[in-house]
Amino acid sequence: MNITFQPEEKTIEILPTQTLLECAHQGGVEIVATCGGKGRCNSCRIQLLDGEFTPPTDEDFRVLGEKRLRQGYRLACKTKVLSDGVVRVIPPISEQLHRILSQTEHEERPLKPDVSKRFLILPQRTEEHQSSDFEDVHEQIGVTEIDIAALRHLPSVLFESRREMTVVCWKNTVIGVEPGYTCERMYGLAFDVGTTTVVGYLLDLHTGQEIAVASALNAQTVYGGDLMSRITFAQQDRAHLQKLHERILKTLNEIVQKVCEQAGIDAQQIYEATIVGNTCMHHLLLHISPVHLGTAPYLAAVREQLVLSAKEFGLHIFPQARIVMLPLIAGFVGADTVGVILATALHTNDQITLAIDIGTNGEIVLGSKECLLACSAAAGTAFEGAQITHGMRGAAGAIDRVAIDDDVHCHVLGEHSAQGICGSGLVDAIAQMLDADVINCNGRLITPEDAEKKGVPIALRRRLRVDSDGKRSFVLMDAHQTESGEPLVITQQDIRELQLAKGAIATGIVMLMQRLGIAEDDIAEILLAGAFGNYIDIDSATRIGLIPDVPRERIRSVGNAAGLGAQLALLSSEAKDEATVIARRTEHLALTNDARFQALFAEQMRFPG
Amino acid sequence: MNITFQPEEKTIEILPTQTLLECAHQGGVEIVATCGGKGRCNSCRIQLLDGEFTPPTDEDFRVLGEKRLRQGYRLACKTKVLSDGVVRVIPPISEQLHRILSQTEHEERPLKPDVSKRFLILPQRTEEHQSSDFEDVHEQIGVTEIDIAALRHLPSVLFESRREMTVVCWKNTVIGVEPGYTCERMYGLAFDVGTTTVVGYLLDLHTGQEIAVASALNAQTVYGGDLMSRITFAQQDRAHLQKLHERILKTLNEIVQKVCEQAGIDAQQIYEATIVGNTCMHHLLLHISPVHLGTAPYLAAVREQLVLSAKEFGLHIFPQARIVMLPLIAGFVGADTVGVILATALHTNDQITLAIDIGTNGEIVLGSKECLLACSAAAGTAFEGAQITHGMRGAAGAIDRVAIDDDVHCHVLGEHSAQGICGSGLVDAIAQMLDADVINCNGRLITPEDAEKKGVPIALRRRLRVDSDGKRSFVLMDAHQTESGEPLVITQQDIRELQLAKGAIATGIVMLMQRLGIAEDDIAEILLAGAFGNYIDIDSATRIGLIPDVPRERIRSVGNAAGLGAQLALLSSEAKDEATVIARRTEHLALTNDARFQALFAEQMRFPG
Repeated sequence: MNITFQPEEKTIEILPTQTLLECAHQGGVEIVATCGGKGRCNSCRIQLLDGEFTPPTDEDFRVLGEKRLRQGYRLACKTKVLSDGVVRVIPPISEQLHRILSQTEHEERPLKPDVSKRFLILPQRTEEHQSSDFEDVHEQIGVTEIDIAALRHLPSVLFESRREMTVVCWKNTVIGVEPGYTCERMYGLAFDVGTTTVVGYLLDLHTGQEIAVASALNAQTVYGGDLMSRITFAQQDRAHLQKLHERILKTLNEIVQKVCEQAGIDAQQIYEATIVGNTCMHHLLLHISPVHLGTAPYLAAVREQLVLSAKEFGLHIFPQARIVMLPLIAGFVGADTVGVILATALHTNDQITLAIDIGTNGEIVLGSKECLLACSAAAGTAFEGAQITHGMRGAAGAIDRVAIDDDVHCHVLGEHSAQGICGSGLVDAIAQMLDADVINCNGRLITPEDAEKKGVPIALRRRLRVDSDGKRSFVLMDAHQTESGEPLVITQQDIRELQLAKGAIATGIVMLMQRLGIAEDDIAEILLAGAFGNYIDIDSATRIGLIPDVPRERIRSVGNAAGLGAQLALLSSEAKDEATVIARRTEHLALTNDARFQALFAEQMRFPG
Repeated sequence: MNITFQPEEKTIEILPTQTLLECAHQGGVEIVATCGGKGRCNSCRIQLLDGEFTPPTDEDFRVLGEKRLRQGYRLACKTKVLSDGVVRVIPPISEQLHRILSQTEHEERPLKPDVSKRFLILPQRTEEHQSSDFEDVHEQIGVTEIDIAALRHLPSVLFESRREMTVVCWKNTVIGVEPGYTCERMYGLAFDVGTTTVVGYLLDLHTGQEIAVASALNAQTVYGGDLMSRITFAQQDRAHLQKLHERILKTLNEIVQKVCEQAGIDAQQIYEATIVGNTCMHHLLLHISPVHLGTAPYLAAVREQLVLSAKEFGLHIFPQARIVMLPLIAGFVGADTVGVILATALHTNDQITLAIDIGTNGEIVLGSKECLLACSAAAGTAFEGAQITHGMRGAAGAIDRVAIDDDVHCHVLGEHSAQGICGSGLVDAIAQMLDADVINCNGRLITPEDAEKKGVPIALRRRLRVDSDGKRSFVLMDAHQTESGEPLVITQQDIRELQLAKGAIATGIVMLMQRLGIAEDDIAEILLAGAFGNYIDIDSATRIGLIPDVPRERIRSVGNAAGLGAQLALLSSEAKDEATVIARRTEHLALTNDARFQALFAEQMRFPG
C-alpha cells in the first residue's frame, strides 16, 4: 500500500505491519518523535486526510483527546494503514530556534591555538643538496611530522608557488600547504552538542574573534527526545547506531554550512573543531555504541581527549583539520560539563560554587579548587516544552513569561499570537500558580470549590477545569487569544512532568551537597548555565524548588558555559590541557546507585511550602 | 572503429588518432611497454590478423626486422588503424617468474616486533567505578593511545567476551581488540618493491619465521620498464599518476592474497607491513607525484620513515595495521638501499665493503662504519632481458648459462627448448665471446674474415653473420634447437645495450671509489645483492668489467638483501631505528651532476682488455 505525506507530497510504500512513523522515517519524511515512538507525547501527531487506518489506541485518546481525534489527528507511532491513503505532517512549531543561546562573553586569555600558519620562502636547491622538501620545511619552522595528504601536495605547491608558501600546522604536525601567503585566513569551530540542540561557533584563530554562530535541532530527535530513548533505539538494531551517528554528523555539517555562509568564508579554511557534549553524544559522534552506557555499570568506552582528522570524523571542513573531542568525566557527565567548569573557572575558585547546566540531561557540579563533584540528572524534555500538552520550544509564538495577580498575564515571544508555552513560561506559570494557591505543595491543582473556599480571585477560579474523567487543568489563555482558537491549558499531567524534571535536578543538587557535607548557606554562588539557565526567571526557579533558596545576589546566569569552554579550548592549547586536568580531577556521583535516591527524589518532587 | 584483441576476444572502440597500445590500455587489455611506448623495444609487439592498419614505421623495421613484419608483427605503440580489425597480443614469455629471488637467510637478532598481542581479563566493574573501558586496558598493559576503530569495537568485545580479550598493539597504541585468546595468530609482511618485480614475505611475528613468499611483476610495467619512463608517463596527465599508484597497490594486494593462500591465514591477522623500494616506487605507493624527482635538483618530497594505517594506504590487510615506509637516502637511492645496508651490516663494518644491488635501477654503496657513500645508476632493463633482441626474463626456456670453447654450449632453464636469453646468460655469452676474441674490447663483433685471421675456431666463425645492411650478429643457438624455429642471436645492438647497462654500474662504482679516494685493492669485500646479483656468474661479471677485478674470494652473493632489510625492520623495533640512522648517515652522490661523469661513462662502456 502507498501513503502520501502532505505537505511534501511524498508517496512511500508501507507494509501492513509498519506504523506511519516507521514508514515516514524509512522514506525520509521527518517526523519528530520526542518520546521515541512510545505514544507518550504528541510530537509525532499527524492528520489523516484520506484512506482507512487502524482505530485510535488508548495512547491516542490519552495524548490527543477526543476533539483532536474527531478532527482526524493521530499519533504516527501508533497508527497503521488499511488502504492507500494521504496524511498531513504537522510541521515543527518553528524552524528557527530564536532563543537558543549562542552569544557568550569571552574570558580574557592569551590567544594560543594549536593551529598555526607560517609563511615560508624555501631556498632554491641544487643537486648536491641531499635534503627532501619536508626537511627544508622542518629546517625553517621545526615541525616534526607531516600528514600524508599535505605531503602529497608539497612538491607541486613548492613548484607552482616558486617555493613561497604557507604551511598550516596543528601542534608540531604539518596538516596543509598552501601556495603564497594565506596566514590571515585561519578559522576554527567550537561545537556544543546537546541532546536537543547543537550550537556551533566560528572563530577567527588569527584574532580570536567570534565571526559567526549557528544552531540547529539535533537531527537525532526524530528517534527520541532524551538520552535513554536514543540508547534504546540504538539497542534495537545495528543499523540504528549508524542512523543516530549519521544524523548527529548531518546536524554538525549543517552548522558548518550556516556559519560559513554567515561569515562568507570557505570551509576549507577551518583547521580545527573542538567538541563538547555529554557522553552519549560523544560516543554517537564517534560511532561508538552507547548501548553499554545505558546499562549498569554505565561505563564509557573512553574518557580521554581524542583527536581525529576531519576526514575520518566526517566533518566537511579541511580534511586534515583536527577534531578535538574534549575529555569526559564519567557516566553521562561529559565534556560539556568539563567546558562549564573550564569557562566558569570553578576548578580554581576558593569558594564553593554550584553550577547547573539545565538541558534535556541536566549536569550539576559542586565544589571549589579543593574538590569537584559532578552528577547528571535526567530532567527529560519538559523544560524544552516537550511532553507538555501545549508545550513548545522557545520560538516565536511561545509564552515565555507568566505573571498572576487577580488574573493571568502572559508574554508571547515575537509578533505572534500564542501557539504554546515554553520552558521558562511553564516554570513562571507553576511558580505563580503556587503563589496564587491554585496548586498545593504536592503539585495538585485545587478544585474550583476549594478555590472558592480559599478566596482565590474569581478570574482565576473560572480557569480551573475538571473534565468528565475527573482530569484537572488550568486555562492559561482563552481560546480567542490563541493561534489555534483552542484554549491553552496546563494540565495536572503537565505539572507532574515539571515536578519530575525539577525533582531530578534538585535531587542531584541535594545529593552533591550531602556528599560534600555542606548546607545551602555554604554555597557562595550558584551559576545557571545553558540556554534554559539564561532565560529562566531566577525567582520562579527558586519558588518551585529547582535551585536552592539562597539570596538572589548569589545566583547568576552564565550563558552557554559549555560552548564557551569549547571555544576556550579552541583558542588555547593550555586550556585544552586544563580540560584534561579538570576531567581527571572531577569526581562523578552515580545518583541512581545511591540507596537514598528514591526517597530523596520523592521528597524533591514536592514544591517548597 | 573497433579492434578485437586476441586471445582475450575483447573488442574496444578506437579513434583514428590512437595507437593500438593506447587503445589496449584504455580498454584494459594488458600489453607490456618496457620502453614506455617510444618504439625502442619489442615488448609491445602484436600480430595483425585482420583489417587495415597504418604502414610499418622506421621503428617497426629496426626493432622487428623484415621477416617479422612480413608475418604481420607490428609495434602496438606505433600502429594505428584504418578499419575495424583483429590483432593478437603476444603473451609475456612466462606468467611464472621462476627465478625471482625470494628466499634469504636470516641474521640472528632478538625478536622484538612493534606489533604485540596481550591477553587480558579485565575486572568486573561497579557503578562507583569511574574509569572507562580503555582506562581498564591501560591500567593492565600501559598502552597510551587507541585507534578510533579499535575503540568502536571495545565495548561490545568486552561485553561479548565477558571481559576476556586479546589486545593488538603497535608500539604504545591499541590498534585492535579481539574476543578471547588469539595471541598466537600475529603476522607481518615485508615488501621489496622493485621497478620490475615486487616480492612479499609473510612472517609469523610470534615466532619470527617466514611462512610464505610470493612475487609478482610490477603492474606499472605496462607504462614503461624503467623509472624515467614511469616518471614521463606521470608527467603527461594528472590521471596517469593515479594509474601508476593504483597499479603498484594492486600488485601489492595480489601478493597479500598469494601469501595468505600459501600460508592458509586470514589477511585480517596481518598487523604490520614494512616496505622498501627506490624513491620513485616509494612516492608512487604513497600517491606522491614523482615528477619533480625526474628533474633537477631531483629532490624527494620526504625521506623520513613514514607510518600509515593499512586503510589509508590501501593495503587489504587488517585496516588498522601499520604500514611502515622505511626511510630513503636521497635522489633515487631509496629504502631498498637502506635495507641492503641494514641486512649486510655495512654500517658497522670495520673494513671497506662495496655492495651492488643490480636491478632496473642499480644501487651502489661503498664504505664502512666510518663513512657510507651511495649512488644510483640507471642500468635500464638489459640485465632483465628487455630491449635485447631475444632477451627474456629468467623463466623456463631462458638460456641462463653460456660456455664457449671450440663452439657454443648453452644451458636452458626448465624442461623447455630455448625461447630466449636472460640477463645472466647474456653476461656469460658476452664474457665468453670476449675470451674467444669474437668481440673486441670496444664491444665490436669481428667480421668472419677477421675471425679467420685471428684463428677463431670454425664452429664459432660460422656463427658470425653480417646482414645486407652490414648489421653484425652472433648466432648463439641454431634454428633447429629453438622453440620458434628461428636462430637465437646476439646482435651488435644487444652488445651495445649491455655495454650501456654495465657502463652505468661500473661508472657509479668508480665515482664512489674516487670520492672515497680508494683503489680496488682497498675493497675488502664486494657483495652482490638482488636477484641478478644472485644468479650472475661472478667470473663473467668481472670479465665484462661490471664489477672490479678483485680476488674471487672477496666477492659474494648475498641474496635479496633489500628484502631481508625489510624483514629485519618488521621483526625488530631496533632495526627500524637503525634504518633511520643509516638513511641519515649515508651520503648520496649525484652521478650525472659530476663533470667527469660523461668521460668516465664512455671509458666504462669498454670491456677490460
